[in-house]
Amino acid sequence: MFPNKKVQKIVGSRIQVEMKGDLNLLEGTLKSVDDYMNLHLVDTMEIVKGEKVRSLGSVVLRGNNIILITPVEE
Amino acid sequence: MFPNKKVQKIVGSRIQVEMKGDLNLLEGTLKSVDDYMNLHLVDTMEIVKGEKVRSLGSVVLRGNNIILITPVEE
Amino acid sequence: MFPNKKVQKIVGSRIQVEMKGDLNLLEGTLKSVDDYMNLHLVDTMEIVKGEKVRSLGSVVLRGNNIILITPVEE
Amino acid sequence: MFPNKKVQKIVGSRIQVEMKGDLNLLEGTLKSVDDYMNLHLVDTMEIVKGEKVRSLGSVVLRGNNIILITPVEE
Amino acid sequence: MFPNKKVQKIVGSRIQVEMKGDLNLLEGTLKSVDDYMNLHLVDTMEIVKGEKVRSLGSVVLRGNNIILITPVEE
Amino acid sequence: MFPNKKVQKIVGSRIQVEMKGDLNLLEGTLKSVDDYMNLHLVDTMEIVKGEKVRSLGSVVLRGNNIILITPVEE
Repeated sequence: MFPNKKVQKIVGSRIQVEMKGDLNLLEGTLKSVDDYMNLHLVDTMEIVKGEKVRSLGSVVLRGNNIILITPVEE
Repeated sequence: MFPNKKVQKIVGSRIQVEMKGDLNLLEGTLKSVDDYMNLHLVDTMEIVKGEKVRSLGSVVLRGNNIILITPVEE
Repeated sequence: MFPNKKVQKIVGSRIQVEMKGDLNLLEGTLKSVDDYMNLHLVDTMEIVKGEKVRSLGSVVLRGNNIILITPVEE
Repeated sequence: MFPNKKVQKIVGSRIQVEMKGDLNLLEGTLKSVDDYMNLHLVDTMEIVKGEKVRSLGSVVLRGNNIILITPVEE
Repeated sequence: MFPNKKVQKIVGSRIQVEMKGDLNLLEGTLKSVDDYMNLHLVDTMEIVKGEKVRSLGSVVLRGNNIILITPVEE
Repeated sequence: MFPNKKVQKIVGSRIQVEMKGDLNLLEGTLKSVDDYMNLHLVDTMEIVKGEKVRSLGSVVLRGNNIILITPVEE
């Protein structure tokens, strides 16, 4: 299964995303993903050393600045 | 709804944008967005720790250097 | 009006450009722009804290490394 | 053999990946790769100075933020 | 004249190039440029504060990591 | 000769590559290159101040994170 298909398969579940730039680890519910791996997350939080530091709500993340996507083990 | 469509749906409203590079958080009214997520904002401000530090007026933001877009809760 | 069209509309006028990398704010007269937002500026200056620190003359700026473009209020 | 084909040939084996951003060296089993060199790894670990510091499990890595891929000598 | 055409017009002349990454200002004779603004330079030097610090000879520069190109005033 | 053709012409020879990210200068034998300037090198070494500090063997380098390619004078 292609990597992008892998991401599409977990739409609706919680994921963690490492981004380029100064943002820390983001965690949210994946609402949608497109072919460029742009993501729409809701109930998004910024996490530092395992702790939630900021609530971001609904966010769109630009695909090319995503480093890593991983599902959150429920 | 694809992430880019999500952004198109909030044209006319206030948004916050995290960019790569040395700029801080930007907030402005979204006038237009294209398929590359290039944005045109007006009444744009640069925000540091919740405080407006600089007024930027009308700006065009290059899509590939956008990290995160989020609507401002009115 | 699409963001790129917005930039094309101000060809001939003075603009400021924030770039990725170590360059500071650039200001110059916009001679041309293409679909990738590559820019050709003339009479270009590098600006630090509102002060002109270096004159650069004619420059071509690579679109993908542009963060922000804003017209200079005359 | 084209570089991307080279990566496709080692699907199923352990690889190390250097990424842009703040992540250290990643090591995992390559499950799939696409034409953009997006990767899906499983049993992924983050490695600092040869030591495993974090277990990441199943991850998708965005191709454009990959710097280097190298097979792990078994 | 489109920015890329502007660069093609100065093939054969000396140019200065600011790159992303840790390299300083590069100066060399432009041998060729393609549509991605990849450049081939010869007699290339690395310049720090106006001083030549390293001779690099023949180099290929990847377009997307070019920030700025400017002709050298002879 | 287009820059990419220039690189294709030196397949089989030793080259040095400056990359984005935290890697130092890489030197290796160029086995293949594609249109995105993705490279496959073998007998690859990481070089710091002219000294070999790490042997990397067979590596694939992602084109968009390449800053500079230069042939090694034998």
